[in-house]
Amino acid sequence: MEFTANQIAGLVGGAVEGNPKVAVSTFAKIEEATPDAITFLANPKYTHYIYSTRAGIVLVRRDFVAEHPVSATLIRVDDPYETLSRLLDFAAQAMNPAPTGIEQPSFVAEGVKLPDDVYVGAFAYIGRGAKIGRGVKIYPQAYVGDGVEIGDGSIIYPGAKIYHGCRIGARCIIQAGAVIGADGFGFAPTADGSYHKIPQIGIVVIEDDVEIGANTTVDRATMGCTRICRGAKLDNLIQAAHNTEIGANTVIAAQTGVAGSAKIGAQCMIGGQVGFAGHITVGDHVNIGAQSGIPGNVPSGSILMGYPAVPARDFKRQAVYVKHLADLFDRVSKLEKASQNDK
Amino acid sequence: MEFTANQIAGLVGGAVEGNPKVAVSTFAKIEEATPDAITFLANPKYTHYIYSTRAGIVLVRRDFVAEHPVSATLIRVDDPYETLSRLLDFAAQAMNPAPTGIEQPSFVAEGVKLPDDVYVGAFAYIGRGAKIGRGVKIYPQAYVGDGVEIGDGSIIYPGAKIYHGCRIGARCIIQAGAVIGADGFGFAPTADGSYHKIPQIGIVVIEDDVEIGANTTVDRATMGCTRICRGAKLDNLIQAAHNTEIGANTVIAAQTGVAGSAKIGAQCMIGGQVGFAGHITVGDHVNIGAQSGIPGNVPSGSILMGYPAVPARDFKRQAVYVKHLADLFDRVSKLEKASQNDK
Amino acid sequence: MEFTANQIAGLVGGAVEGNPKVAVSTFAKIEEATPDAITFLANPKYTHYIYSTRAGIVLVRRDFVAEHPVSATLIRVDDPYETLSRLLDFAAQAMNPAPTGIEQPSFVAEGVKLPDDVYVGAFAYIGRGAKIGRGVKIYPQAYVGDGVEIGDGSIIYPGAKIYHGCRIGARCIIQAGAVIGADGFGFAPTADGSYHKIPQIGIVVIEDDVEIGANTTVDRATMGCTRICRGAKLDNLIQAAHNTEIGANTVIAAQTGVAGSAKIGAQCMIGGQVGFAGHITVGDHVNIGAQSGIPGNVPSGSILMGYPAVPARDFKRQAVYVKHLADLFDRVSKLEKASQNDK
Repeated sequence: MEFTANQIAGLVGGAVEGNPKVAVSTFAKIEEATPDAITFLANPKYTHYIYSTRAGIVLVRRDFVAEHPVSATLIRVDDPYETLSRLLDFAAQAMNPAPTGIEQPSFVAEGVKLPDDVYVGAFAYIGRGAKIGRGVKIYPQAYVGDGVEIGDGSIIYPGAKIYHGCRIGARCIIQAGAVIGADGFGFAPTADGSYHKIPQIGIVVIEDDVEIGANTTVDRATMGCTRICRGAKLDNLIQAAHNTEIGANTVIAAQTGVAGSAKIGAQCMIGGQVGFAGHITVGDHVNIGAQSGIPGNVPSGSILMGYPAVPARDFKRQAVYVKHLADLFDRVSKLEKASQNDK
Repeated sequence: MEFTANQIAGLVGGAVEGNPKVAVSTFAKIEEATPDAITFLANPKYTHYIYSTRAGIVLVRRDFVAEHPVSATLIRVDDPYETLSRLLDFAAQAMNPAPTGIEQPSFVAEGVKLPDDVYVGAFAYIGRGAKIGRGVKIYPQAYVGDGVEIGDGSIIYPGAKIYHGCRIGARCIIQAGAVIGADGFGFAPTADGSYHKIPQIGIVVIEDDVEIGANTTVDRATMGCTRICRGAKLDNLIQAAHNTEIGANTVIAAQTGVAGSAKIGAQCMIGGQVGFAGHITVGDHVNIGAQSGIPGNVPSGSILMGYPAVPARDFKRQAVYVKHLADLFDRVSKLEKASQNDK
Repeated sequence: MEFTANQIAGLVGGAVEGNPKVAVSTFAKIEEATPDAITFLANPKYTHYIYSTRAGIVLVRRDFVAEHPVSATLIRVDDPYETLSRLLDFAAQAMNPAPTGIEQPSFVAEGVKLPDDVYVGAFAYIGRGAKIGRGVKIYPQAYVGDGVEIGDGSIIYPGAKIYHGCRIGARCIIQAGAVIGADGFGFAPTADGSYHKIPQIGIVVIEDDVEIGANTTVDRATMGCTRICRGAKLDNLIQAAHNTEIGANTVIAAQTGVAGSAKIGAQCMIGGQVGFAGHITVGDHVNIGAQSGIPGNVPSGSILMGYPAVPARDFKRQAVYVKHLADLFDRVSKLEKASQNDK
């Protein structure tokens, strides 16, 4: 399927600059695009590519000013990334149509009612008392334990595991290999040095519009619930321990770990490989750099980095000072010699 | 089911203080409890909640002294956390009865004998020559490779994978998505810059009473065995490389990595996201803070933190000194100026 | 099966020193070997074990000079580790013969052609339009999505998941629980603080001779492809984000994370738990120490360590300076007092 610049501009409410008849049939990154592709420019780091790109069409901001000639046709829009995203939505649905129906063999416990429009892949398991919403897609080899509830329109990708009693909201996406509701890590020491397992009788509640990345683990609560709030997005290989809470619309990059009972606020941006200590409270709109260690409470609006974390601007200065430590030791030695000589 | 304070105190050997007839039917955390719930107070950080909790009953230490009025009925016990744990055991068994029987379809290789009291979930796979103990539960989509042995009473949660020849002790718990016995990471460089895979012909031995967290990986040995000793507890997303050994009753938090051939002693407490270099030896009763990096051998009884790790008290001091480096550079500059002026 | 030192030396082109008739039937590490075992000495750290090992035969370098008496029979070869590896290859094939045939129940979509010599384990899923090469082994509970291509001789271990449209080369090994082609982590913020998911319409391309570790995740590209180049070896629990590229013969240890659109060159050696920022370029033959943080571009041939990373020799010096900071603060205080007294 081909679309002209004119057709696309009409669809997305943009203004064409260049040849309105140029047609594209695919998407590409600006530095790799071929003439049959549409691309976009959002990150200023990539601006220089617009002068050399071979793309047929480039989505740019309405206020973009070219400093050199551009051979591609431009479509000016308010937000090129968001516009591209909408175009990709159309394309994704055309390229990879959503599966439907019940593949065999699959296991659906007696008494579970499946709405007409669900997908259940082969080797998927749905336990006793599970409640499955409209349009839910449960891919092959996924596990939905006894009493699990899954809201309308959610997608459970291959091999994701949801333990008994956990609740998944509407329009959630659980990527492959994610484990929701495994036992929290709780043990009581005994007199002989061994540990007694604390039963974990709580659950995990994942609210609406949450995405959980591949092989991420969200443990069930000891009591009560571990909660991932509305709109939060968790990348791959993240650990959310028992009784943690991740606030609404908070975004967490891969391999970050949140220890038991820590609460992270809403609208935070958390980098990859960050570690949060247990039993702490992190406010809203907090921004934390990759690989940071967060040992204590964090006020709303903080921008932190480092191990242990400090305000991000201090972290960068500290790194510079540490680099010049050799020099400082030398300077102090010279002062000491001078001071000796004075006596 | 409801239980009165009097009934619970009798069951756990505690002393009631308050209304012995107050009845509860659920568990809750102290800050979230409702009047129908029993809770506990163990961590001193949470003491202030006892004056405002709505819980019907609170388990407290025998020597707890209230500094303000408490409306809940108290039950005084030696160890509130351990007591709660025992009560949770009763409740967990009542709430989520253990499954039994062989669900279909499942795959059990010819010649494998299953004791009468095992559970094998749908889509579980049990390979040739596997030996399965009494009361073992193998949940749906779990994989038990050829020749694997699993001791009495162990639980293999959904989708856990145990490669051929590995041995799991009695009363072990392997959470969902854990991978036991994948190939160790061993490659020999060749003249053309590519790598030749070293076959990994060893196994993994997991001794009795071990718990392995969700999506944790324990690699098989190149030769011999990778060993997780009796009573060790590994949290989620941990990497234990080929030929490592984790000592008895050692507890390791999530996302820690142990490189090839490292040996960690018994009764250690290891934080999350810690990294151990390969071929090192860590003694017994070692305590390591989260996100530390351990480049070399560690004597028994050490308490370490940092990257690279130092004694924990030094780590905290170092962080303070680093924070004041800007100030120190200023002070040295002033001394230098003063020294110049003296001449 | 037993083999004499003479037979083994003939097989591997080595020179026997000691009793050519001594026979072995197993492999072992030098410090654990019994008289029926062959072992090897490559790492100089282990040299002292050769004087006490109980092994029947030890593979050593041709130029090895014993400083004390050695009771084992030696076989001198060019590269003991590589020679051992070849012997292990023979043994591994004898001990754990490759499975073949199609186990039931498995799911093979209509129209998919399977070569005669493949293995498809029970509960494996092969989607519509998938292309499976000769000798491919797809273990139980593995998922091969619609349109996936797998080259000749590749092995997909139990429960590995390959999303639709991804391409795996020849002779690749995908360990259990690895997830190839889950959605990249891309979201566009909207005016109300929530995020709009960017559809991820690209794929993952894994070239020939690549190994992907257990529970490692390689995300599909937003557009275009995420690429793991020929001969690269990824350990367990690694995150390779959307649109990353890992160069040929690059080796990455466990739990490292590579953020979106980062490019790592060829022949690099990357330690465990390293973090790479997004959109950066790392050259060829780069060596990065465990737990390092790489915030920016890295020239070819660099040897880095630390957070943030610096040249490895500087990292070690910095750690020493930081250890002596308390001392430096004291020295400066003394100088200040002396300077006061002078006035």
